[in-house]
Amino acid sequence: MDSKNLQAKTVAVIGMGLIGGSLSLRLRELGIAKHILGVDTDASHARKALELGLADEMLDLETAVGKPVDSAVRLLPVLLDRAEGRIVVDLGSTKADIAVAAAGHPQRGRFVASHPMWGTEYSGPDAAVHGAFRDKVVILCNLQDSDPDAAEWTRDVFSAIGMRVIEMDAVSHDIHAAYVSHISHITSFALANTVLAKEREDEAIFGLASAGFESTVRLAKSNPDMWLPILRQNRDNVLDVLNEHITQLRHFKSCLEKENWEYLRELMHDANRIRRILG
Amino acid sequence: MDSKNLQAKTVAVIGMGLIGGSLSLRLRELGIAKHILGVDTDASHARKALELGLADEMLDLETAVGKPVDSAVRLLPVLLDRAEGRIVVDLGSTKADIAVAAAGHPQRGRFVASHPMWGTEYSGPDAAVHGAFRDKVVILCNLQDSDPDAAEWTRDVFSAIGMRVIEMDAVSHDIHAAYVSHISHITSFALANTVLAKEREDEAIFGLASAGFESTVRLAKSNPDMWLPILRQNRDNVLDVLNEHITQLRHFKSCLEKENWEYLRELMHDANRIRRILG
Repeated sequence: MDSKNLQAKTVAVIGMGLIGGSLSLRLRELGIAKHILGVDTDASHARKALELGLADEMLDLETAVGKPVDSAVRLLPVLLDRAEGRIVVDLGSTKADIAVAAAGHPQRGRFVASHPMWGTEYSGPDAAVHGAFRDKVVILCNLQDSDPDAAEWTRDVFSAIGMRVIEMDAVSHDIHAAYVSHISHITSFALANTVLAKEREDEAIFGLASAGFESTVRLAKSNPDMWLPILRQNRDNVLDVLNEHITQLRHFKSCLEKENWEYLRELMHDANRIRRILG
Repeated sequence: MDSKNLQAKTVAVIGMGLIGGSLSLRLRELGIAKHILGVDTDASHARKALELGLADEMLDLETAVGKPVDSAVRLLPVLLDRAEGRIVVDLGSTKADIAVAAAGHPQRGRFVASHPMWGTEYSGPDAAVHGAFRDKVVILCNLQDSDPDAAEWTRDVFSAIGMRVIEMDAVSHDIHAAYVSHISHITSFALANTVLAKEREDEAIFGLASAGFESTVRLAKSNPDMWLPILRQNRDNVLDVLNEHITQLRHFKSCLEKENWEYLRELMHDANRIRRILG
């Protein structure tokens, strides 16, 4: 997709943090947005976003939508009420709840549910980076409920910023996201707490962190304010995967307890098949 | 430490894989080794090591030490028998067993137990890289049992290749290694098996892997032949940490089951303190 086929528009980006901020930079870099109206509930984030050039102007969310709203699920119907032919795209990490929030709205067709599979463990406007999203996957959900022009424009924008577009229903999305994203955060948070529990006894653990440890625990730096709603909205799927993960860990535990080294080798050998997925 | 203070020597490196190969490259780069005698039990690794210039000559292990040995713990006394004033340094990931193997040997003083905290998920001579070990920690164990000249030379070499030297007794080392390295491998292996169990049902999970997932699961690509002996030798400590980790995961599970969102936020907030360790 050549971004030149996309007519430059005014784009409003609600939430000027890691994702919104990085997307704004990218839309501007590629000439897809000629004017970016940033919206944020946090005044210091709004100031920072202007300072960093993430937006051309910033508006308080309440001013922008005329009433206070505290979640994307509550915000969406308010935005659709006043869509007037515009396209409303959400970028959240769970999709089933937002799909329910949109269902049956007279302007449902103006909405496109998306999840760009890119992020870092940092948040806020300071975390925004140039060149984000490239070569990553974006999942568009329930596209049959979006107007064809809205679906096409959204698909074209994500292609233009270098993403691979995959379609899926919202319920399947949330199951997959539990496996390939949400569970990783829980294991990292729990691993950090495991090590920190020990570290209380012994300062020597500082500075020994190997690259391998850093890699597995890096997501434990993630912002609880971001992850609480995700884990809450995807509770059932995350619980299923977490139960399965604890079962898998118990297999390792049992091998060590029983000194069953052949089975331990087999478990590690099985895990090596992840190379097929990671490349 | 300036490497020019180290007299160039002939260095024999036993095991021409990721660690031995990368160390050879580094010793040569810095002029610390003027001749590298590589030793390996695997003939194809030996050929590869010569091809890649990791060693100047290669010798089969049995030829080199006069008898077949299948582990560092068994090899060490054989090497010490013929040390004749040379310095024998081991680079393994566990230290208590090798310290026991060395204890009481008439040439104990020639031995230095070390664990350079660097590695990747790859193994074999192909995995060797230039510039390895820089800015990482190396732990030297039970230095009081090493001759002063052997301890000093080893310390100087690790400093010269850019490592920060920490001293610790072998038993403490193995406890810390369980926390900051070994448990990470088990959680990655188990996470890979969790996702692969699901993926059997559904191919769509391919290609959705986010950067966060890749990071937490990357160690699952590690070689079982390398990790089996490590987990076996450090069984008791790894079991302790694994039990603690399962307990921590159960806290997350309980929050999700009981929809105790305040406690979930607290657990994630606690985990954020890992920033102190990771920087």
